[in-house]
Amino acid sequence: MPTDYTFQGWLGHSPEAFNGKMEWGTFEPKKWTEDDVDIQITHCGICGSDLHTLKSGWGATNYPCCVGHEIVGRAVRVGSNVNNIKLGDRVGVGAQARSCLEADCPDCSQGRENYCPRVKVNTYDSRYPGDEGMSMGGYADYNRTHHKFAIKIPDGLPSEYAAPLMCGGITVYAPLRNNGCGPGMTVGIVGVGGLGHFGVLFAKALGADKVVGISRKRSKRDEVLALGADEYIATDDDKDWWKTGKGTLDLIICTVSSANMPLSRYLRLLRTNGNFIQVGAPDGGKFPEINVFALLGAGIKIGGSGIGSPADIEEMLQLAVDKKIEPWVEKRPMSDANQAIVDLEAGKARYRYVLVNEKHLSETKL
Amino acid sequence: MPTDYTFQGWLGHSPEAFNGKMEWGTFEPKKWTEDDVDIQITHCGICGSDLHTLKSGWGATNYPCCVGHEIVGRAVRVGSNVNNIKLGDRVGVGAQARSCLEADCPDCSQGRENYCPRVKVNTYDSRYPGDEGMSMGGYADYNRTHHKFAIKIPDGLPSEYAAPLMCGGITVYAPLRNNGCGPGMTVGIVGVGGLGHFGVLFAKALGADKVVGISRKRSKRDEVLALGADEYIATDDDKDWWKTGKGTLDLIICTVSSANMPLSRYLRLLRTNGNFIQVGAPDGGKFPEINVFALLGAGIKIGGSGIGSPADIEEMLQLAVDKKIEPWVEKRPMSDANQAIVDLEAGKARYRYVLVNEKHLSETKL
Repeated sequence: MPTDYTFQGWLGHSPEAFNGKMEWGTFEPKKWTEDDVDIQITHCGICGSDLHTLKSGWGATNYPCCVGHEIVGRAVRVGSNVNNIKLGDRVGVGAQARSCLEADCPDCSQGRENYCPRVKVNTYDSRYPGDEGMSMGGYADYNRTHHKFAIKIPDGLPSEYAAPLMCGGITVYAPLRNNGCGPGMTVGIVGVGGLGHFGVLFAKALGADKVVGISRKRSKRDEVLALGADEYIATDDDKDWWKTGKGTLDLIICTVSSANMPLSRYLRLLRTNGNFIQVGAPDGGKFPEINVFALLGAGIKIGGSGIGSPADIEEMLQLAVDKKIEPWVEKRPMSDANQAIVDLEAGKARYRYVLVNEKHLSETKL
Repeated sequence: MPTDYTFQGWLGHSPEAFNGKMEWGTFEPKKWTEDDVDIQITHCGICGSDLHTLKSGWGATNYPCCVGHEIVGRAVRVGSNVNNIKLGDRVGVGAQARSCLEADCPDCSQGRENYCPRVKVNTYDSRYPGDEGMSMGGYADYNRTHHKFAIKIPDGLPSEYAAPLMCGGITVYAPLRNNGCGPGMTVGIVGVGGLGHFGVLFAKALGADKVVGISRKRSKRDEVLALGADEYIATDDDKDWWKTGKGTLDLIICTVSSANMPLSRYLRLLRTNGNFIQVGAPDGGKFPEINVFALLGAGIKIGGSGIGSPADIEEMLQLAVDKKIEPWVEKRPMSDANQAIVDLEAGKARYRYVLVNEKHLSETKL
C-alpha cells in the first residue's frame, strides 16, 4: 500500500470549467481524523450533478473544486475508529457524504443520512465545506472520506459498474424501493439516460410487472427495450400518448430536469393513488405548473427523492450482484475527463461515463 | 311515510344564483330504479363546493341546478334491490354519488368509488348528468340516490353533525387516515374553516400527538385552540413562522384554495418524508409554483385527496360517535338558503352552516 501519496485531481477554478477547462493540480483534502478512510481511486462515474456544480448551476460553487461523487477505489489508510473498512478493501463513496451523524439529528438518527440538514462531518464536490475542510471529489488520484460513507463493494460487482451506482444508481433505486416497486406494479421511467437507465434496470430487478421507458424520440425505442423495458413511449413522436396510456402506471420516476417537461401529461398516466417521484434537479429548481385538480381527481402525489442512505446503498449493491445487473457504461481514461464532460453535456453517453484511473488499476490489480 | 311527494328545492338558473339568487321550484329527479332510495331531507350542509358549482367556477354547470351534497334525511322509498337501507332509516348522502360501480372499474372494484373516472349511475350537483338523469342536490325537500351512496347514520350522531361530515368531514378524514395520522405524528391543518375545523377534530380523534392549526390571523388563535388544536400559527402575524416551525410536521392537510398561498413556506414545516395533502380546490385549479429542491431536499410529497369512499364515510361516522366529535355548526332554516350562501362567501360561518328543513323535522321526529 502506498503511504506517501499526494492529493491531485481535476480542478475547476470558475464556471468555465464546465466547458472542458478543468486543470489537473494538487489540492488540500479534508483534515485527517481517525474516523476517516483514504481511498486510492480507480474509478469515478461522471454524474450530471458534476456539470451543475462545475458551472455553479445549483448555487455558488466553492472554487477551486474537484467534482466526482461516484468513487470506487482501494482503502490505503484507515483511521483507528473505523470498523467497517479494512486496509486494502475495495470501497465506494457516493454523494451523501455530508451528514452530521449526531444522535439528536432527526434524519441521521433514523437512517436517513441523505436528508441530514446539518452539514458538518464531510462534504462532496466542495459545495458544502465542512468543519474539517472540504473533502473534494473523485476526478482525482485519492479521496478522503468519513468511514460511515465509505461502503464496501461486494465481490462480484465490477468496479466500473459499482462506481455509477453510488449516485446515479441509488438516486433511482431509493424511490423505487420506498414507493413499493415490486410484483403487481407497473412503473414508468421518464428520461432514459444516465439516471433513467438505472431506473429500468432496477425496476425490473425489483420484480415490477411491467416497466415503461418514457423518452422523447422514437429512435431510442430499441435500445430502451434492449435494456429490459417492456414498453416504450416517445413523447415527441407518439400521437396522444397521454390518452392512450391514461391511468396505466402505479409509479413514475422522473429523471428529466426541465421546467418545460409535459408534467400534466405524465400525471395522466398514473392510476388512482399513484406516485410521481422527481429525482432530476434542474438548474434553479424550476418545475412546471401543477393544476390542483390533477392531484385531487386521482388522489395522486408528486414527490422528490434525494440519493439514498448508506444502508440503502449496501442493499442496492447486493441486489446488483444477486440480479447480475449490468449498467451500460463507457469507460474513459481519467486523463480525458475534460472531453468526457463535454461529451456528456452533448448527450453522447450511453448511458454513463466512468473515468478509469489506469495507473491505480495496474497498481492494485482491481 | 309520505308517498305523494314532489321534488322541490332551491334552483340556480345561472351563475348569478351564487349571489343569493336561487329560486325555489320543482325539479325532475333522476329516473327511479330499484337500486334507489328516496330521502325526505331534514338537513343539508352548505359546502364551499356549492358556491363553486352555482357560479360555474369549476367548469360549466348544467343549469338549472339544485346544489347540496351533505344530505341527511329519512328513507321514504326504498328500491327492491336495496339491502343496506330500510324504509324509515336515517341516511346520509355525500358528494361521491357519481361512480360507475362496474366490476371492471379500476377504482370502484377497489373500494375507491370516489375516484371513479366513469360517471354513470348517479351524480351530484347537476354537474355530471348520468345516464338516468341528474339526481340534483340537497337544498331541497327530497333527494333520490343510488343506495350504494346512501349511508345509514349511526345512532347517537345528531343529524346536524352528520350532514356536514358527508362531504366536509370526509374530505379531511380520508387523507388523515390514508397518510397514517395517529400516535407519534404531528399534524398541521392549513385553513381552519369549514373543512379545516374538521381536520383539527379528526386529527385529535385519530390520536395524533400534536395538532397545529395554521391560519392567517392571530385573532383566530383562541377559537382554534378551543377546537382542540395544541398549537396555532398565524401566517400573517407571526414573524418567521416558517423558520421557527421548520421540520416539525409529519403531515399537512391544506384546505385553503388559493394560488397565492405561501406553499413553499408550508413545505418548510414538514419533516423529512412528510406529506402535504391538498384538499381545497381553487377555481381554475391554479396552484403556487413549486421548487424542485423543496421536494428533493427532504424527500417530501405534495398530494391531493378527493372526498372519500362509502366505506371511508361509514368508518368516519362511527369514529364521530365513539369519540363524541362535535363539529361547530350553525343551523339555518332551509328557507334562508340564499342568505346563508351569501354569509358563507363573506366568511361569517363558524364553521359550517347546516340548512334545516323544519317541516320535515317535525314530521319525522328526527
